[in-house]
Amino acid sequence: MQEKTIMDYETVDIDLQTKELVIIDQTKLPYSTEIIRLSTAKEIWDAIYLLQVRGAPAIGVAAAFGIYILATQIEEEEFALFYEKFTEQKKYLDSSRPTAVNLSWALNRMDQVCVANQDKPHKELLEILEKEALAIKEEDTWVCKMIGEYGLSLVKPGDGILTHCNAGQLATSKYGTATAPIYLGQERGYNFHVFADETRPLLQGARLTAYELHSSGVDVTLICDNMSAMVMKKGWVQAVFVGCDRVAANGDTANKIGTSVVAAVAKQYNVPFYVCAPTSTIDMSLEHGDLIPIEERKPEEVTEMWYKERMAPEGVKVFNPAFDVTDHALITGIVTEYGVARAPFKEAFEEIFRKKAEK
Amino acid sequence: MQEKTIMDYETVDIDLQTKELVIIDQTKLPYSTEIIRLSTAKEIWDAIYLLQVRGAPAIGVAAAFGIYILATQIEEEEFALFYEKFTEQKKYLDSSRPTAVNLSWALNRMDQVCVANQDKPHKELLEILEKEALAIKEEDTWVCKMIGEYGLSLVKPGDGILTHCNAGQLATSKYGTATAPIYLGQERGYNFHVFADETRPLLQGARLTAYELHSSGVDVTLICDNMSAMVMKKGWVQAVFVGCDRVAANGDTANKIGTSVVAAVAKQYNVPFYVCAPTSTIDMSLEHGDLIPIEERKPEEVTEMWYKERMAPEGVKVFNPAFDVTDHALITGIVTEYGVARAPFKEAFEEIFRKKAEK
Repeated sequence: MQEKTIMDYETVDIDLQTKELVIIDQTKLPYSTEIIRLSTAKEIWDAIYLLQVRGAPAIGVAAAFGIYILATQIEEEEFALFYEKFTEQKKYLDSSRPTAVNLSWALNRMDQVCVANQDKPHKELLEILEKEALAIKEEDTWVCKMIGEYGLSLVKPGDGILTHCNAGQLATSKYGTATAPIYLGQERGYNFHVFADETRPLLQGARLTAYELHSSGVDVTLICDNMSAMVMKKGWVQAVFVGCDRVAANGDTANKIGTSVVAAVAKQYNVPFYVCAPTSTIDMSLEHGDLIPIEERKPEEVTEMWYKERMAPEGVKVFNPAFDVTDHALITGIVTEYGVARAPFKEAFEEIFRKKAEK
Repeated sequence: MQEKTIMDYETVDIDLQTKELVIIDQTKLPYSTEIIRLSTAKEIWDAIYLLQVRGAPAIGVAAAFGIYILATQIEEEEFALFYEKFTEQKKYLDSSRPTAVNLSWALNRMDQVCVANQDKPHKELLEILEKEALAIKEEDTWVCKMIGEYGLSLVKPGDGILTHCNAGQLATSKYGTATAPIYLGQERGYNFHVFADETRPLLQGARLTAYELHSSGVDVTLICDNMSAMVMKKGWVQAVFVGCDRVAANGDTANKIGTSVVAAVAKQYNVPFYVCAPTSTIDMSLEHGDLIPIEERKPEEVTEMWYKERMAPEGVKVFNPAFDVTDHALITGIVTEYGVARAPFKEAFEEIFRKKAEK
């Protein structure tokens, strides 16, 4: 019997019998594959905060499942009382991470469905919430597949592709966003050569992207974040694909720290730089990227985490932003499930949202 | 009694009584300060190869001391026989690391002195070699101080300075190269705010630069290599200073992997990018940077070293170049002990070497 790989598990799932959120604990990868089951608000909040589940789309799905699970635990059946508790839990989950808009996007979508069905009997309301949460997950798979198709149209067989952090299957329900063109290309014999930035400090590129691509038989080479210029200068990279946590109306893109470094380097070496963005990550309410809140995390992630011994002097200051904002001027195209947006991005997004509304 | 800090030790020294090379084992910093004493060819070769002593200027000094120590161990006193062994040892030491030109520069300088004094009695020849090795170290201190003075003229009090890897006191005899303006500024109340890239995979920035600057009371903030764009975009950085391992005649500069990433990012955010280069690192025999040999190191440095557990999937490919070449077009100025060279660099270097010859 073949050993199970990470690709055999669902990144985010729900056990509808026991009403538990079922996830792969991504902080343990790649040296151990632990499936964990969560049902309390604190457990679900922690899982998002601690990055046991991570990646903007996966966080959205986890939040939708999470708020549904918490809704089933509310004792009050009278809507006003129920909704008060629901709102409380929603706010709590929403506070777990600030940058990815999918978290609040998914929670708001659940909230809207809740409000729209307030006249329904309580049991039916819960069924509707369950259905909505499952739909969010199912749509995520479709969205990733479509991003893969549009992304694939931007590259050629044999191309070198560089990616940063993990916008892979482990960040979504399936296919990933930035990895979707790679997986679809793999199915169709494109023979890409992928370079995965290790992505300090949390090493999502080394632990997750290199892991899932290698498990899937993709030709992947791990590099440190500071090697991107070298591989581009050597002519080994024909396109960069990255994911995103929030895109402003003008195309400015918040994504894992270091993304804007890759973008500046890609510009220097004339390598096209593509952001893979489900429309759920595009926040038209924000005019530009400076308005996106950027999460800062603990210094210990830089100085101690993973290490046998502390790797920096005691007491030294550390700056540890989890994300940065890539200026839209550095972005060649933003790949959505409804097509590739190019500058001027605001107009392109409006067109994409028109297509989405027509669907 | 105040605790000893790293600044109380010599980076590279020689015990003239016992004829031993005395160095701080930099692979153990910052969690342990171990002074080691080396006297065999294998020990000295290993110390350079394993980066127990590192940084182009310090490698030069270690090589000069090393070849002198090995020369004292040669039993043959007749010059032809002595010189045969000397050349053998010189070649062996020279093979320890390919990129930094200071290694062969220092060995060749010792060799030339050896040849020029072949008619001297053996004891006197050894004394001359000892004197030359000590002079190489002493000159290194002077060179760093002058680089500091010229570097300091390029910045203002209160400026933010970003540096990559360690071109500090731990990479030289004293002051460092890229850190020389910082240390001189510190003495003169400039109150710089320094950002130290941690510098994967060997973490010289976190372990060494942050350590020595923090020990010296400099305001230093540790960042991951992929955060340079964020701190520059915030306007926190007014200049980048980096060291170098070899500079080609056209100004193309080999330095620690990731230097060319910082250069591309600095260009994007209009931050001046300065290379601090003792003239001993300028190799006028190489027309451009593509001719500089680039050392590739073991994958385990990326996937395993420092960690409690392996941080990448088994069997994944890893690309681990130790250096990259920054295109001269990205370099604002190259700071030498005889002044700041600006484009066109070849002409500027010729002028600098004229000044040096006149001295």
